[in-house]
Amino acid sequence: MSARPFNFAAGPSMLPESVLQRAADDMLNWHGSGMSVMEMTHRGSVYLGLFEKVMGDFRRLLNLPADYKILFMQGGATAQNALIPLNLLGANRKADYVNTGHWSTKSINEAKQYGDVHLAASAQAASVVNGLDQPAFTYIPDMANWDVRPDSSYLHICGNETIGGVEYWQWPDMQALGAPDVPLVVDMSSHILSRPIDVTRFALAYGGAQKNLGISGLTFVILNEALIRDRIKKPLPGCPTVFDYRKVLENDSMFNTPPTYAIYLTGLVLEWIEAQGGVAAMEAKNRQKAEMLYGALDASIFYRTRVAKNARSFMNVPFYLPDERLYEPFLKGAQERGLLNLKGHKAVGGLRASMYNAMPIEGVRALLDWLAVFEKEQA
Amino acid sequence: MSARPFNFAAGPSMLPESVLQRAADDMLNWHGSGMSVMEMTHRGSVYLGLFEKVMGDFRRLLNLPADYKILFMQGGATAQNALIPLNLLGANRKADYVNTGHWSTKSINEAKQYGDVHLAASAQAASVVNGLDQPAFTYIPDMANWDVRPDSSYLHICGNETIGGVEYWQWPDMQALGAPDVPLVVDMSSHILSRPIDVTRFALAYGGAQKNLGISGLTFVILNEALIRDRIKKPLPGCPTVFDYRKVLENDSMFNTPPTYAIYLTGLVLEWIEAQGGVAAMEAKNRQKAEMLYGALDASIFYRTRVAKNARSFMNVPFYLPDERLYEPFLKGAQERGLLNLKGHKAVGGLRASMYNAMPIEGVRALLDWLAVFEKEQA
Repeated sequence: MSARPFNFAAGPSMLPESVLQRAADDMLNWHGSGMSVMEMTHRGSVYLGLFEKVMGDFRRLLNLPADYKILFMQGGATAQNALIPLNLLGANRKADYVNTGHWSTKSINEAKQYGDVHLAASAQAASVVNGLDQPAFTYIPDMANWDVRPDSSYLHICGNETIGGVEYWQWPDMQALGAPDVPLVVDMSSHILSRPIDVTRFALAYGGAQKNLGISGLTFVILNEALIRDRIKKPLPGCPTVFDYRKVLENDSMFNTPPTYAIYLTGLVLEWIEAQGGVAAMEAKNRQKAEMLYGALDASIFYRTRVAKNARSFMNVPFYLPDERLYEPFLKGAQERGLLNLKGHKAVGGLRASMYNAMPIEGVRALLDWLAVFEKEQA
Repeated sequence: MSARPFNFAAGPSMLPESVLQRAADDMLNWHGSGMSVMEMTHRGSVYLGLFEKVMGDFRRLLNLPADYKILFMQGGATAQNALIPLNLLGANRKADYVNTGHWSTKSINEAKQYGDVHLAASAQAASVVNGLDQPAFTYIPDMANWDVRPDSSYLHICGNETIGGVEYWQWPDMQALGAPDVPLVVDMSSHILSRPIDVTRFALAYGGAQKNLGISGLTFVILNEALIRDRIKKPLPGCPTVFDYRKVLENDSMFNTPPTYAIYLTGLVLEWIEAQGGVAAMEAKNRQKAEMLYGALDASIFYRTRVAKNARSFMNVPFYLPDERLYEPFLKGAQERGLLNLKGHKAVGGLRASMYNAMPIEGVRALLDWLAVFEKEQA
């Protein structure tokens, strides 16, 4: 076992130790080049070879068909909140969104400055789900009731709400929703490659790299080329050229200098995933970790969770103590045991354990130990 | 002497070996935190302390007065080509530009989609400078003839043209140009901190970090706060919120997750500059390197340079051989000696030696040796 702390931060967060070790070993001399990857010109054959390998590994792990392309961009998912409407709204400027929490809300508010935004569904109010009272933003609205405009330029969802801990386990069926021609767009920032996902369900999937894919400063946009070529054709006037998906695509993500080192680091993470057994192995491990933690929380009358069982995130688990005064001693004790960054986001309070691919089972076991000890101490 | 190659790439390019060594040493455990900087949440006290130190060091090296602020953004100078007009054009949508080469041209073309762009001066045509015929984009147009509109929202220049090798050694005097109220904006991507520069001559200076400041994926914007607060007030409609200078400023460059590792790396570079004797020491070294190389080129009838003497860049030196067939053997021999990436940009052809702060004197000496040997071989 490593003496490294277990970092439960929501992102940037833990990276596999072997990835960091390789980054350290490569730092002054990548593969005998005599150079650090940081120093390589992005136009040189050495870096281009590395770049192609990263793209190829990413495609393979995503099981991406030929008509889907990957763009590497900058600005994070927050920039995409503007760049998606700028690129995809098209002439009618209609977009539909589903609001499941903090990040959906941000996406919606940004989109409103570009067009006619319609809420196809929202979890912003408390509701009864499977016979249980659910507070706002702790569930996915029943898809049977989604109201998607059939002529909308796209329907946007947030696949995993990092703050609320709400994750989709079933994707909307656009045919069943009466909107078979509406492209589905998903923010996958906090659960990309955490489990096998059929990307062909989406016209576009995007996110920041800093949770499951590496470090902050790299944004991925995975898209069906036909979305741009046949449907949308061109962005709204005013879209910066460097963020025009067509230009990024035409220039193989090198319209401008890409974040070369962040791309290399993502490459190391992808190789690590592959070596661990691929995305299916990630899912098995993530399921085990989630079952361990939710199991312990459910078995306790001391700790509480709020998220509807059918929408519980494997990645981010918010939970609560019975008394506000207990948070400080809980977090202090956790820190002493090397369990870091368990404080919940200020928007929802409480505690949060983020358990991305790189969080080992041992980290969750150590957290369970502390949960048991702390509960006993308070009894 | 190190066995590392001398990398003359235009950027990303060489970094100081000691910076890379520190990055390697820190990789698994930054200052006893047990974590890599890559893993740190940007909202945590450990990372915030690091971030503040980087900002403070950068301010000190720039000798920045209190009314100037630094923003850390993403998207590179190429994104700023759109974000500057979006943020600064204001109601009258008038901007003036000076065209001195490839990068100015890119800035101008991007700005045209946002407003009324006027060329205050251009080096796009051949001209006579100091009695000598100068080809296009090898000189700075005589400032006595610049035509700046006094009601323009800003005047934009490119401080150093990385491809053409044209650098400003004198800044425009807005008073003398009859435009005392026009804020001066400068692209400093390829010569920031290469020599002491009085930043108060500018309302805004910006650039990518990957030449003199670290790695690609980090963009700096240094601005006089009054520019935003009193003059411009708000960006054009459609500016993505994450790129609204006011929002970045209000949120201390953390409106979204910043490129945390790239910022750390810039911090290491800033500490290296300080340890070398600061920006004045950088200038002395850069002057010495430039004098060595231009001296050798001027003394030769074999090699040719084109840039007007009063506009020669210390950072990027394009030069030419007497016969197209000689480039391949020149570059091959250079590579064998560990002198990498000397090929000129396709826009201007020939050769180019980029000598940023991290290029040691020994690298230029090795280049001079090869210049002498190659010339002799061809004689």
